[in-house]
Amino acid sequence: MKNFVFNTHTKVYFGKEKIVDLSKEVTNYGTNVLLVYGQGAIKKNGIYSEVVEVLNKCNVVEFGGITPNPRIKMVREGIKIARDNKIDVVLAVGGASVIDCAKIIAAGYYYEDDPWDLVICPGEIKIVLPIITVLTSFGTGSEMNGSAVINNEEEEEKIGTYSPLLQPEVSILDPVYTYSLSADLTAAGVVDTMSHAMESYFSKDKDTFVQDKIAEGIIKTCIKYGPIAIKENDNYEAKANLMWAGALGLNGLTGAGKTSAWSCHPMEHELSAFYDITHGVGMAVLMTNWMRYILNDKTVDKFVEYAENVWHIFNEDDKYKKAEKAIEMTRKFFDECNMPVTLGELGIDDEKFESMAVNAVSNGLLTFAYVPLKKEDVVNIYKMCL
Amino acid sequence: MKNFVFNTHTKVYFGKEKIVDLSKEVTNYGTNVLLVYGQGAIKKNGIYSEVVEVLNKCNVVEFGGITPNPRIKMVREGIKIARDNKIDVVLAVGGASVIDCAKIIAAGYYYEDDPWDLVICPGEIKIVLPIITVLTSFGTGSEMNGSAVINNEEEEEKIGTYSPLLQPEVSILDPVYTYSLSADLTAAGVVDTMSHAMESYFSKDKDTFVQDKIAEGIIKTCIKYGPIAIKENDNYEAKANLMWAGALGLNGLTGAGKTSAWSCHPMEHELSAFYDITHGVGMAVLMTNWMRYILNDKTVDKFVEYAENVWHIFNEDDKYKKAEKAIEMTRKFFDECNMPVTLGELGIDDEKFESMAVNAVSNGLLTFAYVPLKKEDVVNIYKMCL
Repeated sequence: MKNFVFNTHTKVYFGKEKIVDLSKEVTNYGTNVLLVYGQGAIKKNGIYSEVVEVLNKCNVVEFGGITPNPRIKMVREGIKIARDNKIDVVLAVGGASVIDCAKIIAAGYYYEDDPWDLVICPGEIKIVLPIITVLTSFGTGSEMNGSAVINNEEEEEKIGTYSPLLQPEVSILDPVYTYSLSADLTAAGVVDTMSHAMESYFSKDKDTFVQDKIAEGIIKTCIKYGPIAIKENDNYEAKANLMWAGALGLNGLTGAGKTSAWSCHPMEHELSAFYDITHGVGMAVLMTNWMRYILNDKTVDKFVEYAENVWHIFNEDDKYKKAEKAIEMTRKFFDECNMPVTLGELGIDDEKFESMAVNAVSNGLLTFAYVPLKKEDVVNIYKMCL
Repeated sequence: MKNFVFNTHTKVYFGKEKIVDLSKEVTNYGTNVLLVYGQGAIKKNGIYSEVVEVLNKCNVVEFGGITPNPRIKMVREGIKIARDNKIDVVLAVGGASVIDCAKIIAAGYYYEDDPWDLVICPGEIKIVLPIITVLTSFGTGSEMNGSAVINNEEEEEKIGTYSPLLQPEVSILDPVYTYSLSADLTAAGVVDTMSHAMESYFSKDKDTFVQDKIAEGIIKTCIKYGPIAIKENDNYEAKANLMWAGALGLNGLTGAGKTSAWSCHPMEHELSAFYDITHGVGMAVLMTNWMRYILNDKTVDKFVEYAENVWHIFNEDDKYKKAEKAIEMTRKFFDECNMPVTLGELGIDDEKFESMAVNAVSNGLLTFAYVPLKKEDVVNIYKMCL
């Protein structure tokens, strides 16, 4: 097991009506609050009113309109509003796009130059406004970690950044707040949660048994509750398990003591950057093709572990058949979640495969991944997804 | 899933030679350091020298001699020394007894009356000196939570207390620091870790799937690495997995969203209070007898889950037989760890069963446990252990 630092300090209030705890936590940091939100869903489903009501003693400055795959230009705008209003604390109410945007606004508040610097050079993040989140989606884990993914449209880049300073001080996770998610977005959250656990799970590191058991547990939670939540949007227990699994899936637990280079996320970030698709959807298309591509004599034992512990495939002696069966069952699970199988279904052809592959390798450190991937490998995997 | 607050803010430095990070963390809080330690093992195995060396810029005031099942009188003594030396930060170097004692010293520093009040009324803990730990054992999880267990010899009481304020700011977990543990203490740590996961696992709460998967993962880690670590004290991977499992086993992960009343711990705390035995050893004698005692139509399904997911017992259709087989395998595992089977082996007879049972029920809230236990039940379970 490699050395690591584990520092998940976010205080999580989890459960029904936990919004009542928001006010005392916000006012720990001040009363000038920047309320960052998305494209208005929270105004329709009542969450906005609940938040504004509990913050009736604060000066709430609104900054709405954050889109999925949040743009750096919105970050710039948010920083200006925050500075003009001498904001004390940034409150993100929404899913990951809103939270990620809020994080870079909070970091950019104190940074004199362009905030895109903070995305590409997270070492420049030295001081950050306190960040509080009220989650209305699940899967990215942004509510409990220091990661943020931001799009730079002009450069056609989508880059993930990380600093422990970006970790929210407090996050409120009420599974009821995810009831109004569409079935598609619920499915995307399920796949995203699963994918985080899997990126850590498939690694060269040996003897990270306890971390791998946690990853398997998170994946199994998705398998058990994903299809239920997609069908019954108001199934509390399904949503609660998924919401908590989503937070635990990327708060450091599954990756502790392991090499941190991932495989599928860098490839998917390029798809979202170039085509503005939902991250979890892109992951569903990529993941099983990536698995097929990297299955070889060096990786087959890990796939056998995955097959046995996650999918309970025991009645098969041949290692490769076992591995292939596990990949097949993963794909079947994505089908059950109504996820697309091909890039074609997302309106993506091979036109930009070369450019995306170049970016994925350089931005995503793919040469350090579980199975190191060069540009040609990435193009091959994209082609398998056609 | 019940509502919960999850707030594990301890920053963990995990791995070889992580002691190098101690100085910068300690001096965040000041330079007057109270170094709390046990009965001198750290002077023999070199850990003491390493700690003192990295703290060469601090004023280190020593307070050694903490015994297992730490006494309230040592806490009182420690508070006096801390006050006399205007201590800024309490550094515990040792196992749980040392850490637990250090926690109540840190809380008692600011408390005007007798610190035993803080053990029996944790609500009185309002302000605490910062606590930093360097762990030399594993299993209690005290390095990453707000719990402390203290003995009051005069009253023949051993009581567990809890306050989020007792949580260490920083803990350093170097698996190498556990190499000098005896095989017996290693085994006790394994059983203790397992027992924490099991106390949370066996609960009335349904639909805490992700928490239960984590608990199963921790139990399996003990099963896989426990016997290796007992035989090979310097097996880094075994010790690393156990040390990390021990921390995760009681930092809130397995108990989140569940009723917190436990079953075996209150019964064992009485054994340790009356007979000064090692906690993990007492747990090994009690646990499988408790399991046998509570196995009934209401609990059998949970035992079947335990049998299948932890012990992979599938070739048995009868629920009760499956449950009994799982209990038997748990007992066999304790045997493999060279744990005693009976209280007799620990020199304990039935003389104090009644008094211990009265205390266990009143101090340990056993009437709220998974299967509620009255005084008579506790006496019956103690008798099964003879």
